[in-house]
Amino acid sequence: MLIIGEKINGTRKEVGAAIRERDRSVIECLAREQVEAGAGYLDVNAGSGSDTEADDLVWLVETAQEVVDVPLCLDSPSGSTLTIAIEATQQTPMVNSISGEPDRTEHVLPLVARHQCPVILVALDDTGIPETVDDRLVIVDRLVEATREAGVTDDKLYIDPLVMAISTNGEAGVIAFETMRQVRARYPDAHLTGGLSNISYGAPARKLLNQAFLALAIDAGMDSAIMDPTAPGMYPALLAAEAVLGRDRFCSRYNRAHRAGRLEPI
Amino acid sequence: MLIIGEKINGTRKEVGAAIRERDRSVIECLAREQVEAGAGYLDVNAGSGSDTEADDLVWLVETAQEVVDVPLCLDSPSGSTLTIAIEATQQTPMVNSISGEPDRTEHVLPLVARHQCPVILVALDDTGIPETVDDRLVIVDRLVEATREAGVTDDKLYIDPLVMAISTNGEAGVIAFETMRQVRARYPDAHLTGGLSNISYGAPARKLLNQAFLALAIDAGMDSAIMDPTAPGMYPALLAAEAVLGRDRFCSRYNRAHRAGRLEPI
Repeated sequence: MLIIGEKINGTRKEVGAAIRERDRSVIECLAREQVEAGAGYLDVNAGSGSDTEADDLVWLVETAQEVVDVPLCLDSPSGSTLTIAIEATQQTPMVNSISGEPDRTEHVLPLVARHQCPVILVALDDTGIPETVDDRLVIVDRLVEATREAGVTDDKLYIDPLVMAISTNGEAGVIAFETMRQVRARYPDAHLTGGLSNISYGAPARKLLNQAFLALAIDAGMDSAIMDPTAPGMYPALLAAEAVLGRDRFCSRYNRAHRAGRLEPI
Repeated sequence: MLIIGEKINGTRKEVGAAIRERDRSVIECLAREQVEAGAGYLDVNAGSGSDTEADDLVWLVETAQEVVDVPLCLDSPSGSTLTIAIEATQQTPMVNSISGEPDRTEHVLPLVARHQCPVILVALDDTGIPETVDDRLVIVDRLVEATREAGVTDDKLYIDPLVMAISTNGEAGVIAFETMRQVRARYPDAHLTGGLSNISYGAPARKLLNQAFLALAIDAGMDSAIMDPTAPGMYPALLAAEAVLGRDRFCSRYNRAHRAGRLEPI
């Protein structure tokens, strides 16, 4: 399971302030702690829409890669911001994201193709987030067709079925799992990702719901997650689910994490 | 999800001593705490093989049903013990269990049929525990054929696919889930149960594995579990899994448990 650490996000108060004040220590700390907790990519989002987004994102990129060796996941809706930020990266970044919104396909896809970046495909379009599994698959099909045409191979794709909150739609989990299973069957070389903690938005004791969702999502084929690996219990829950699903030979990762004291507090 | 509370078991030191000393308070306490924690049945096991098993089991039955109103699950391999104990019950008990061992079918099944008891069917026979899903299904098929012939309807059956430990077989979880899915497909009116915590036997941080297993087992069709509902985090994990799987309309059970303070400590 590839973890895309979600904490360096300018819409979070702490990060927004650090960006404005160019406070490197906050970003360095978030970068280090997420990588230590298991992140394989770090999402960097400068908070979209401001005049300074491109500058801010370049600063985040430069600051993060000073202290960690993992590649970054450039998170912006703007093709021009991404074009500038990508030049600042030392390793090929992932791009977050292309959706069915024409703007994204038009401006972000050529960049992804040119740099052969891994890219997150989000199952929504300019009419919003589809309610049903079938409507999501229609968008995914269209997006995969477009990336293939642009010369991006399926193994570069991280398809996000869009996890919604069960507090507003009790079927949100079931819809996410079914979309994942269908995408996995249609595009076996592509990856499945998504924002894990969306499922529990607005609900109490969110960790419990996130942990249950994680195990079920892995079973449905999710092999990547946009998440906070430092959240108490999440990384242990991930290892436990993989062990129970027979995807951790001899439980070796689980046992190693135990010996390193990383399964506590549980 | 029907919880069969597993704590009143004579093979546990505390309970074995209480049985020998006829210490009612220990049994009363275990009965009360499990029912308060969500148990719908209480398993009672006097520790098989002793000369006094039938007397001991009757004492457990009488002691438990003095303090709680839920039905009991009489747990013994002996037809004669069960025949005596069943007379002491105030509500129709569940019987734990019939397996493919000829002795059980011969002596326990007629009793189950006569009293129209719910009964646990265990997927093993006198050659031991089958390794593969298919071998387990062969036994389950034979058992269901026998119970049907004896006049026990499928809705009385609680089929236990036999959960083994991933510490000795990394595929133990996968085998359990696949057996459950197949049994669910073949016998839609029957229930699926099993010893939850078996999965983590011999592993560290067992709670993590048990929680992951529980969510995945519910998804595979398990609608009953032989478990300790008082184990920290297990009942909350169960409610969370049901909510994520869309089986808790408007998350009402989950939210009610939260308001009652039952989701903490998580």
